[in-house]
Formats: sequence, structure tokens, C-alpha cells
Amino acid sequence: MVIAEISVVPIGTASPSLSRYVADCVQALKDAGIRHTLTPMGTVVEGTLEQVLQAVRLVHNLPFAEGAVRVLTRVAIDDRRDKETTAEQKVRSVQSRLGAR
Amino acid sequence: MVIAEISVVPIGTASPSLSRYVADCVQALKDAGIRHTLTPMGTVVEGTLEQVLQAVRLVHNLPFAEGAVRVLTRVAIDDRRDKETTAEQKVRSVQSRLGAR
Amino acid sequence: MVIAEISVVPIGTASPSLSRYVADCVQALKDAGIRHTLTPMGTVVEGTLEQVLQAVRLVHNLPFAEGAVRVLTRVAIDDRRDKETTAEQKVRSVQSRLGAR
Amino acid sequence: MVIAEISVVPIGTASPSLSRYVADCVQALKDAGIRHTLTPMGTVVEGTLEQVLQAVRLVHNLPFAEGAVRVLTRVAIDDRRDKETTAEQKVRSVQSRLGAR
Repeated sequence: MVIAEISVVPIGTASPSLSRYVADCVQALKDAGIRHTLTPMGTVVEGTLEQVLQAVRLVHNLPFAEGAVRVLTRVAIDDRRDKETTAEQKVRSVQSRLGAR
Repeated sequence: MVIAEISVVPIGTASPSLSRYVADCVQALKDAGIRHTLTPMGTVVEGTLEQVLQAVRLVHNLPFAEGAVRVLTRVAIDDRRDKETTAEQKVRSVQSRLGAR
Repeated sequence: MVIAEISVVPIGTASPSLSRYVADCVQALKDAGIRHTLTPMGTVVEGTLEQVLQAVRLVHNLPFAEGAVRVLTRVAIDDRRDKETTAEQKVRSVQSRLGAR
Repeated sequence: MVIAEISVVPIGTASPSLSRYVADCVQALKDAGIRHTLTPMGTVVEGTLEQVLQAVRLVHNLPFAEGAVRVLTRVAIDDRRDKETTAEQKVRSVQSRLGAR
């Protein structure tokens, strides 16, 4: 399982607000049954590498469907194969280290 | 006020685990009084541009103090000057759009 | 056509040098016939969105085949649909603006 | 010495073209005497960590001076302290590996 963060930014929109586009992304991930968590700077998705790339394809194309002509999508993929982990466990692992100090 | 996400990755560490380094970053941000939130793929910090760059300087240097000889630091800075916002409000703004659908 | 930058970083390698892994990525892109340009901080690839995602899949998996157990891959996708462009044209467009000043 | 890639994206501009903003960044780096190389997906700068953070501060603020109200700036910092290297040497090191195969 892979943990990834995706950020989709349409360029040349008249408004500086992006929340409408982000809401579309989150809705599409939900509809597609892809495990996801919204964070202040992106959306974290979890699944196989194929599912994550499918999520990228899905959300990257959304702003075009709403009239954008240019989209910048950033993806960070964290793929650890020596042990099974989740986005939640990654955060908890750091917090438990901090708690033990 | 600026919202930024910082990710610090030491290269050439023997272990694939990074939670020790991430815990150091979070601790340093806490000790420095910088507003921060841990997410699965990075740490979100909030403040003025100067405070955010100071946070980058601070956490980027930490792994070297623990023996790392190479560090890759990624920063994404979201700076919106037409209205005051916070990391929490960014997330809530998307969630309220989703709730209204 | 999409322009993308890919950066693949294995975590937990004993050495801080990554050039061997980068060379593998460039070789694999070459063998796969994917248009690419090596830059100091990543590899720029060009093609359809599907070709770019295929390139990501390809190079992300390479370090695992050489023993890495954790890989961080970063991708930035620039997809402009109002006009056809290339990585080379993007750079030349900026340079011609600078030359005209 | 640190090698970094900077990408500055104004949000809410009417036009999907960003070359004017990128040209401003390159011009400002040149005027400031900061070693830089334009690539298809960003601008690579070289210097001390302080010089790189100064470059970030400089180019991040430029679009605001031209009317943008929101700017997204991405920075990737590669800091290797076991040996002196340059952006050009990083690329050449990979190319020489490929040539030797």
C-alpha cells in the first residue's frame, strides 16, 4: 500500500479561491471509493500504486471539465514495502515518539 | 499570514524509517513557538513569510546535527493576501462546500 | 501533451549518492521511448497524460528492483490544453521575453 | 553549497500563461547575482542555504508586485555536506554513468 499527497491547481482561473476545485476532487475520490484525507495543502490518498495513479488521473482531469485550460498537479508518493502502514499510523508513530520524550 | 507544508528527508540513512527525524522537526517547531500541524506527508506551518522561512531553516538543519550528510527538503508556500485565512479554515471551507451539496 | 518533472528518491540506502538510481531512471525512460530531459533536480518527461503516468510507474519501481525498501517519488504535471507546447518551448518562451527587455 | 529548484505560481491570474512571471523571477535572480538555471518546470538556484532562502523570498514576492493576490511557491532543497557539488556536476555525474554502461 502506498500513501500519496495530491495537489491540483488550475491556472488562469479568474478567482484566487480554489476551494471549489478541491471540493470536486474530494467528492470524486469519495465517489470512486478511494481512501482519502483532506489536509491544508493537499489531499492524502491511500491504496495500491495503481489506485493512486488512478486517483491522480481522476482529479487532474476535473478542472478541465469545469473550463480550466491549464492544470498543475503535484503528487508525492511514499511507498514503503518492508512493512504495512497507513497515513494515520505514520502520524501516530511520530506522535508516540514525541509522547515518549 | 502564510500556510506552508514542509517535508525533510535525510538521504543515506541506514534505516527506511523517518519518524525519528519527523519527531525532531515537530519538537523543534514546538520549542520555537511556530504554529504547526503534523500531516501524513509533511508538517504544515503557519505564520509570516519570514517565520515560515525561519521554520524551513530550523528543520532542514536538524538531520545534519544527527549525522546525516545529505538532506532533501521540500516546501510548498501558499500565500493569499486578499483575505486572512488559516490552515484549519482552508480545510473547513472545502468541507462546508461538500456539506452543502 | 503534458510536461512533467519526476524525482525518485530511495530512502534507507547506505550511501548519500543517488546518481546510480537517477541513471537507471534515465536509461529506463530511454529504453521505453519516452521523451525526457535530465535536469539538476529531476527528470522532465513529455507525452500524453497516460504516457507520463506510465513513466512514473516505471521509474518509481526501479529502486525496489535494486534492493530499496522505501521510495519517495515526486511528480509535477503541467497540462496546458489551450495550446500545444514542449518543455523546450517553455524555456525558450521565457528566454525570448528576457531578450526583448 | 545547496542546490534548489524554485517554482512560483500566481493563482487567479486571468491568463493561463505564466512566462511573464517566470521571466520576472529569472531577471530578479540575475540582478541579485544569484547563480541560476532555467528548466522547463522551475528555476534551479545554487548558493548557501541563506542565499537560497533569500532567492525564495525574492521571487515569491514578485507576482504580488504585479497584482497577484495569491501565490503558490514550491521549493526543493538538496543539501549535501559530504562533498562539494554543483547543479551541472549532478547532471554530468548521471550522464557519465550512462556513458560508461
